[in-house]
Parts: sequence; C-alpha cells; structure tokens
Amino acid sequence: MSETSLDPEIESHVKWNAEGLVPAIVQQHDTGEVLMLAWVDDVALATMIETGRGTYWSRSRQEYWVKGETSGHTQDVREIRLDCDGDTLLVKVDQHGAACHTGDRTCFDTGVVHTR
Amino acid sequence: MSETSLDPEIESHVKWNAEGLVPAIVQQHDTGEVLMLAWVDDVALATMIETGRGTYWSRSRQEYWVKGETSGHTQDVREIRLDCDGDTLLVKVDQHGAACHTGDRTCFDTGVVHTR
Repeated sequence: MSETSLDPEIESHVKWNAEGLVPAIVQQHDTGEVLMLAWVDDVALATMIETGRGTYWSRSRQEYWVKGETSGHTQDVREIRLDCDGDTLLVKVDQHGAACHTGDRTCFDTGVVHTR
Repeated sequence: MSETSLDPEIESHVKWNAEGLVPAIVQQHDTGEVLMLAWVDDVALATMIETGRGTYWSRSRQEYWVKGETSGHTQDVREIRLDCDGDTLLVKVDQHGAACHTGDRTCFDTGVVHTR
C-alpha cells in the first residue's frame, strides 16, 4: 500500500494531526446514516481514491485496513469531502451489509447516551 | 461550566483520548446532513446533556464554546449516541441557520476531494 502517493494538490489542503492522521466520518451516501468514524493518513486516503474501497489506518493495531477484507462487508466510496478547517474528512460510501464489527448496521446503533 | 459533572454511568462508558477528549460528529436530526465535527470533554458533554445546547471544547483556543453563542446559529440537541468502541459521539441536533463559521450550512459544503 505504501507505493500509492497522494495528489500534492489534495495533500496541500489537509491538516494532519501530530500522528499524521485525520478522522474520517463514514456516511451511507443515500440514507445519510452515519456508519462509523475511522482514521486516515496520506497513504490510506490515496489508496481509497485509487481503489474506491474504504481504507483506513488502525491506531490500535498500527496497520492499514480495508473495510470488508475479512467480513465481506465492503464499502464502495462515492465521494470524499474535506471540512472547512481541512482536518476532518466526510467519506460517503455504499456500505454492503453491516458497517460495525458487532454485526450492527452502524457503530452507533446501540449506544444511546441521551435523548430529549 | 466547570460545576457541571458527568453522570458516572455515562462516564464509565466513554474512552477519552490522552487529552481527555472524544470527537463528536454533529448531524442534523431529520435530514441526516453531517454538519461538523467538534471535540468534547466530560464537562462539555455534561453541559450539553443538561442544557440541550451544542457545547464543545476548542482545541485551538483551549476553551469551551456553545454553538451559536456569538452567531445566533444555535443547536438544539435531540440525541447523543456513543459508538461501539466508546471513543466517538454522534450528536443529533436541530441546527438553526448555518453550522459552519463560513456561513455555509455544513462544514463540508465546499471541500470536494474526490467523486466517482
């Protein structure tokens, strides 16, 4: 994966954190469901653009991962946006099956903290 | 704001980062638009639950901020969810006016990086 490099024009707009990462909000492109939050470095972003597959950096495992590579629950990337500060990505995808490793559709399905 | 403390039951489920923060994805509750990403500590979260107003920690200014306090573009908090890992919040709000300081509806309106 390290042979893929990010377009310098895109690179110049991204403000990576001290670890060289930005958070990526992953959203189902048509329903608007927020599926998960993951982290991306320059290589993961370049790979995601090149392959069209949700590709992230695992901070706990310190390795790249491609969504669905083991589960089969792949993500087709439809659009990637950068926020006004350049430090957060919004990745719109078509999620096949569950986005969460628990088997839930999204990583936010069960954890209600507060409603009003 | 420092007099507000977080419910220990909620506190026990949140995995704060080294700075005592978690990212909060802020979403318009009915349309599903992702409006912005902000950061929250225990006091901001407790305050948001108590007041029903979008309340965050500014990492650049190192201070709390209440969305719309200067712009008038307030956020009524409808629901707060924690993800499966306990390290990301999804805050569903009713956003009055623009969510972005640029005057755009969302912080992702202009920054298209990639489409397919």
